[in-house]
Amino acid sequence: MSPSDIRSRALHEPIPVAQYLFARLQQLGIRSIHGVPGDFNLTALDYIPKAGLKWVGSVNELNAAYAADGYARALGISALITTFGVGELSALNGIAGAYSEHVPLVHIVGCPSTVSQKNGMLLHHTLGNGDFNVFSSMASNVACDVARLNRPAEIADQIDHALRECWIRSRPVYLLLPTDMVEREVEGERLKQKIDLREPENDQEREDYVVDVVLRSLYEAKRAVVLVDACAIRHRVVREVREFVDKTGLPVFVTPMGKGGVNETCEQYGGVYAGTGSLPAVKDRVESSDLVLSVGSLKSDFNTAGFSYKTSVLKTVDFHSDSCKVRYSEYPGVGMKGVLKKLTERVDVGKLKREPGPEVVNEVPKPEGKAEKEEDIITHKYFWPRVGEYLKEKDVVVTETGTANFGIWETKFPANVMGVTQILWGSIGWSVGAAQGAALATKDAGDDRRTILFVGDGSFQLTAQEVTTMIRHKLRVTIFLIYNEGFTIERFIHGMEAEYNDVVRWKYTEIPEVFGAKDVRKFVIKTRDELEKLLSDKEFNDSDGLQFVEMWMPKDDAPRALKLTAKESAKTNAQLE
Amino acid sequence: MSPSDIRSRALHEPIPVAQYLFARLQQLGIRSIHGVPGDFNLTALDYIPKAGLKWVGSVNELNAAYAADGYARALGISALITTFGVGELSALNGIAGAYSEHVPLVHIVGCPSTVSQKNGMLLHHTLGNGDFNVFSSMASNVACDVARLNRPAEIADQIDHALRECWIRSRPVYLLLPTDMVEREVEGERLKQKIDLREPENDQEREDYVVDVVLRSLYEAKRAVVLVDACAIRHRVVREVREFVDKTGLPVFVTPMGKGGVNETCEQYGGVYAGTGSLPAVKDRVESSDLVLSVGSLKSDFNTAGFSYKTSVLKTVDFHSDSCKVRYSEYPGVGMKGVLKKLTERVDVGKLKREPGPEVVNEVPKPEGKAEKEEDIITHKYFWPRVGEYLKEKDVVVTETGTANFGIWETKFPANVMGVTQILWGSIGWSVGAAQGAALATKDAGDDRRTILFVGDGSFQLTAQEVTTMIRHKLRVTIFLIYNEGFTIERFIHGMEAEYNDVVRWKYTEIPEVFGAKDVRKFVIKTRDELEKLLSDKEFNDSDGLQFVEMWMPKDDAPRALKLTAKESAKTNAQLE
Repeated sequence: MSPSDIRSRALHEPIPVAQYLFARLQQLGIRSIHGVPGDFNLTALDYIPKAGLKWVGSVNELNAAYAADGYARALGISALITTFGVGELSALNGIAGAYSEHVPLVHIVGCPSTVSQKNGMLLHHTLGNGDFNVFSSMASNVACDVARLNRPAEIADQIDHALRECWIRSRPVYLLLPTDMVEREVEGERLKQKIDLREPENDQEREDYVVDVVLRSLYEAKRAVVLVDACAIRHRVVREVREFVDKTGLPVFVTPMGKGGVNETCEQYGGVYAGTGSLPAVKDRVESSDLVLSVGSLKSDFNTAGFSYKTSVLKTVDFHSDSCKVRYSEYPGVGMKGVLKKLTERVDVGKLKREPGPEVVNEVPKPEGKAEKEEDIITHKYFWPRVGEYLKEKDVVVTETGTANFGIWETKFPANVMGVTQILWGSIGWSVGAAQGAALATKDAGDDRRTILFVGDGSFQLTAQEVTTMIRHKLRVTIFLIYNEGFTIERFIHGMEAEYNDVVRWKYTEIPEVFGAKDVRKFVIKTRDELEKLLSDKEFNDSDGLQFVEMWMPKDDAPRALKLTAKESAKTNAQLE
Repeated sequence: MSPSDIRSRALHEPIPVAQYLFARLQQLGIRSIHGVPGDFNLTALDYIPKAGLKWVGSVNELNAAYAADGYARALGISALITTFGVGELSALNGIAGAYSEHVPLVHIVGCPSTVSQKNGMLLHHTLGNGDFNVFSSMASNVACDVARLNRPAEIADQIDHALRECWIRSRPVYLLLPTDMVEREVEGERLKQKIDLREPENDQEREDYVVDVVLRSLYEAKRAVVLVDACAIRHRVVREVREFVDKTGLPVFVTPMGKGGVNETCEQYGGVYAGTGSLPAVKDRVESSDLVLSVGSLKSDFNTAGFSYKTSVLKTVDFHSDSCKVRYSEYPGVGMKGVLKKLTERVDVGKLKREPGPEVVNEVPKPEGKAEKEEDIITHKYFWPRVGEYLKEKDVVVTETGTANFGIWETKFPANVMGVTQILWGSIGWSVGAAQGAALATKDAGDDRRTILFVGDGSFQLTAQEVTTMIRHKLRVTIFLIYNEGFTIERFIHGMEAEYNDVVRWKYTEIPEVFGAKDVRKFVIKTRDELEKLLSDKEFNDSDGLQFVEMWMPKDDAPRALKLTAKESAKTNAQLE
């Protein structure tokens, strides 16, 4: 009798590994499992409905990974199942994006049985070299934990550890589940105790010290501002930031990746800061500040309009998930969550000087006496502020890498709007999957928000089929397909008229019906007049199904910030030794 | 002045790196470059038309990789360009398939400039950790050469070496091309000398020895057969095998992965051998043979109907690209190409005993007096032999992992038909991209063959958009979409009625027009009668454009060999320690 058999005999409440795993996912709040079936994961899939979970069934693995990413951004965490080799590698770009952008996603890969592995069998979905670890090794570069579930006695521990890491570090984990382990037994009694997801507390003495240092700087400052970036959202301190801002009354700004992390209707909201990509009043206010409280910063090129920040370390306090930094003084191991809470508790508002930021409004350009035809074109300058007037509280707004990701800087959100973007990783096509995932997450949360997707035609083509999954699950999504004849973002970087930036013209509005939609509402919008009518239409605004808008914009038009960033990007690319 | 500047001055005919690279690809016979534009590869793309090459412009990177795989199978070698991180990872599953199945494919990845890399800039398309080597490290697992083109003085050597490796080892190579290297100068004079693609010759004494040993076995044998497998095609000994078979008159069989490697109309052709998956007469003949000359074998599960070979090592001679084996005697370093040629030269036909193999015919089942309705259903048993009567000389036949890959075992090919399958790697959706690539390759070769694709509805959905690229390049493709309501191959492995094996019903025949087709011919075929009429239609047979056939087959029907293999696969998956 092997040791694992002995252990199995001693189990109080033996349950199959797959049942354990899905029960844990259910406890984390996950209600739908993304993925694509493959022969090495089929038996595991049988346990999904048994755990009260829903199978999503995306059209391919990359779409499924994008969708899981969107689901996690909206709901907090997500799970994805693929099959060994072919499936997991197809998903890898999506996983890498989640890793890059700090999105917690549990990737479960069904793999050949431990027996087949030991015997080095020449199975399908392998490289034919008997190496069964090669794909998990690749995955380890984009996962904060990799667990090969090969020994029943260890599996429950491995799963619990991985799920905790996923949540705390807010990054993907990778679970390799052999076919012969799916129904092996583990201790079911463990499920009575939920996984401890509390973040490790800071050492109190160190935390107190940092809070004191920050408070001193704050009391000295005359023009302090708060700047909210990506990791404030991803590492879950949005509430702590809001409480701090509410109590102190300091002006608050967001970076492009921080958009959605602040209530933009609050009085202190000052706009989007991205160096030279900012509106002039925003740039002036932030860069003339004598103290920038920067929360969760992620200063990538596209998040800073090409590294064009003009803020000095000497005037900056940096709050990160696992460290803080005041000017050049570093405090590793002191995470922002505890520090921000304590700052709010201890700050003496009477000692603060406050100078307001600029007012933010959706400035929809008025007619300028141009030729009537020109006036009627839907330009980016006109469109994005106009979107701000169309949006409603609690909308989920998904924008694609490309013109939409830059245009949305010019949109002032209503309260509680969730912004979903992928600016650092920037994989084109991501937004179609992500919109599916985000819409499903809001539905799973019993929170019937509108999900609104803005995506260009070039990007849409990469992942268009995921619309069929929106249809399959009757999701509430409105898609604005920006029809501008190809890859406009690339055109602005290089090759304005190049053939490689063109795409074939599709009959976009027919896509939903071809992909199975029975009652989609679809529109072709070529002018501002048409758009105004659509955005004012009650039925359009209240729709709880799928809507598809093909909206024409000029091929050579782009948002202000994109033009700037693209120019910087082209320069960086050409830079010589 | 840096050493590379000095070197640059000494160049006789300085040309940009990109020009050099594409000129080399052109010399290899490549005429079209697959890929998707991305900002780190745009400047390089400008050099494609300058080199007299065509840009394909696939819809996404995975499709592009699949297409490059198909192109290489049809033309001999192919090239794919993607962008750093996002693009290359999306393509990775396709590259891994090419690696697994010995397909020579040059993957060029446009990456950030060497300056950005040195400075560890936080760029988009990175993991945000300053690691610019992480993706090429992943790629090194599925490439036989990885070259980071960072130093101008070395680049021409690196390129030439990689392309030679790609060809000789018949596997992908990976070239990482920084934006600032694209236009650096290298020696153009080198182009006057083509890359030496000749395979290294065997040591003559060793080769002679092996030939003698094989000949001795051959003269002793009474019932010898030749068995042609995947690597005979991939490592380019199809002609050598044909000459050997023609001269010796021995019966010749193919494995599923070797299908297309033998002229099936020749008298000696005996059929498809795959253990218990073979037709009884084939199984008997091969397994009762006293000498199997096995050429380029790749004994994967799906190539052997679940490892069901009953051939003995004691009766086998194995010919591989880099070694031979006679019974248990191994001859590493003695490649099959030289050995096969010499065998043909030296064999004394008078000393051979020959016993013919079974006759192979396309056995289209005749009516069996069933109820009329049942008789009219298009079953796999009926369909695949019928396909054999429809096919013409020189057709390119692409079959998808799933029912088609197993069904095609029952199809006897006319002469010079090219079979394109991916049985070892078995990534669903692959065939749609591969068909595009194969069709483009035949067009580029000036050889206007028909490309015929057989793909199930489940698989088609993963990569459907690649039909738009067929349209963009006006390719001659006939698509048989097997409409059988989802993943039938998975159903036979596990979950016959499971929801996860279902897919949404699309309006398949509308797909080509939605994706831009102007003059597609489309058909919905539900009965044998309708199919017979279609396959007899002259216009259908002679079409030189895109044709789309939605063909209804029962959800729970599968080819004989698939049923067997799926059963074995399910057993292997469930196998306990």
